[in-house]
Amino acid sequence: MVKQLQPKSHRIAILAEGSFGILESKTATVLVRYLPENVVAVIDSENAGRDTSEIIEIGEGIPVVQDLAEAMQFKPTMLAIGIAPPGGELPHAWRAILHEAIHNRLHVMSGLHQFLSEDAELAELAASHEVLLWDARKPPANLPVATCKADDVDATVILTVGSDCRVGKMLSGIEVTRTARERGLDAEFCPTGQNGIMVWGWGIAIDAVVSDFTAGAAEQIVLEGAADHSLLIVEGQGSLVHPGYSGVTLSLLHGSLPDAMIFCHQPSRDTVARYTV
Amino acid sequence: MVKQLQPKSHRIAILAEGSFGILESKTATVLVRYLPENVVAVIDSENAGRDTSEIIEIGEGIPVVQDLAEAMQFKPTMLAIGIAPPGGELPHAWRAILHEAIHNRLHVMSGLHQFLSEDAELAELAASHEVLLWDARKPPANLPVATCKADDVDATVILTVGSDCRVGKMLSGIEVTRTARERGLDAEFCPTGQNGIMVWGWGIAIDAVVSDFTAGAAEQIVLEGAADHSLLIVEGQGSLVHPGYSGVTLSLLHGSLPDAMIFCHQPSRDTVARYTV
Repeated sequence: MVKQLQPKSHRIAILAEGSFGILESKTATVLVRYLPENVVAVIDSENAGRDTSEIIEIGEGIPVVQDLAEAMQFKPTMLAIGIAPPGGELPHAWRAILHEAIHNRLHVMSGLHQFLSEDAELAELAASHEVLLWDARKPPANLPVATCKADDVDATVILTVGSDCRVGKMLSGIEVTRTARERGLDAEFCPTGQNGIMVWGWGIAIDAVVSDFTAGAAEQIVLEGAADHSLLIVEGQGSLVHPGYSGVTLSLLHGSLPDAMIFCHQPSRDTVARYTV
Repeated sequence: MVKQLQPKSHRIAILAEGSFGILESKTATVLVRYLPENVVAVIDSENAGRDTSEIIEIGEGIPVVQDLAEAMQFKPTMLAIGIAPPGGELPHAWRAILHEAIHNRLHVMSGLHQFLSEDAELAELAASHEVLLWDARKPPANLPVATCKADDVDATVILTVGSDCRVGKMLSGIEVTRTARERGLDAEFCPTGQNGIMVWGWGIAIDAVVSDFTAGAAEQIVLEGAADHSLLIVEGQGSLVHPGYSGVTLSLLHGSLPDAMIFCHQPSRDTVARYTV
């Protein structure tokens, strides 16, 4: 199981250049929502000078700044890439910003499909400046094919599912977990995506797993969570009707074998986002 | 699109040590069935001295031999790994056989998940002996997320589906393609697994694609096939009810968006093979 380094121990500048918004920069929004004491600035020249809460309704007191140089005034120790572009590749224009961040000795946290730690140039630069490149989406090695073992765990397993991407599956999972804990239940959130992993500190980004092993990764997450907890809230991904990601969703369902599901839907949405079929 | 090097131009020795059988060594069986003029020997010490047809009912005249040294009598130019172990990793005992094959200047063709071309030791050895390591399962770079473009092609798209693994989805696809061609239709087989790729010479092994891009890979295969042909028979994978592989199957369905499906089932099977739930 991948235990990630902990963003909770860092001062985070979030890179959301040109795309800061409640849905456009989901990673940025999640970090502001769940790690508000750690986020010191959001970088987006289009909104520079405003307060984060003016744009995404949360994060009051966190400034939006022009560039990394301005963000450095707030003494960050980490740069988080706040956007997940379709395809998950590093936008070319951001390489210079990453170079600058590494030269400023910031660790870099990324949820991109393209792994920064495997980019020879960035990896060498990071090593020479003694900073880490954290790829939250990088799956562990040697994942198994699923074997239905998740059906045998003593814990009660709840999976959040939904009608589309970005309808609140992760947020519902975190909020239900927190509420269950407040009520005295031994609940654990089981992240299956890069944003949940960044916030919660463990998990596997199952959309980055080779498809033969995706259900096996979901099974591993449940087995790991069930070893220490009696109630698991597993973060859902995609949707069974999503043209691009349905296979990820079905793998997660068959790998985690939940006892119950929480269905998330945005009532105002009448098509799958970005698709017109 | 990955155009594989052509096994049809080689003399092939198949490695099936300890597991030669009609289902145990599916790759070996497929190569014997569809490339009988190219296969010169099958290596399996447990069945050495017998004829291939005594074991898998096809391949009359192809000898089963004790080891690679004996296979070399038949002047192979390529060693094909004939087994797909669950998990897809190279059995440790086979490394020595691969070393011996490369020293004997045989190309190596593999459908394992573990890519031989990325194994530093084997890659170096192959380079120094001027032979190639062909990983039929290695997906192309930069696959897209699916966008439903497969729905727009002019070609008629037929997908073979099934109730389990190993029930004849690939064979049905190849046989229907051949029959359609015999009847004058402009049919093309679209391989989505390593065995089909080895036989047919193109395609993408979608179970080796990162899950976010698996439907996109299926879409790419259809777009590629539809550029030149009016009837596509897309090779199915897994099953929608398979605990380990259902996500691969649903990705393939939503990526290829078939006009029709051919359902493959083995009537004597009443559970999913290897699973008891």
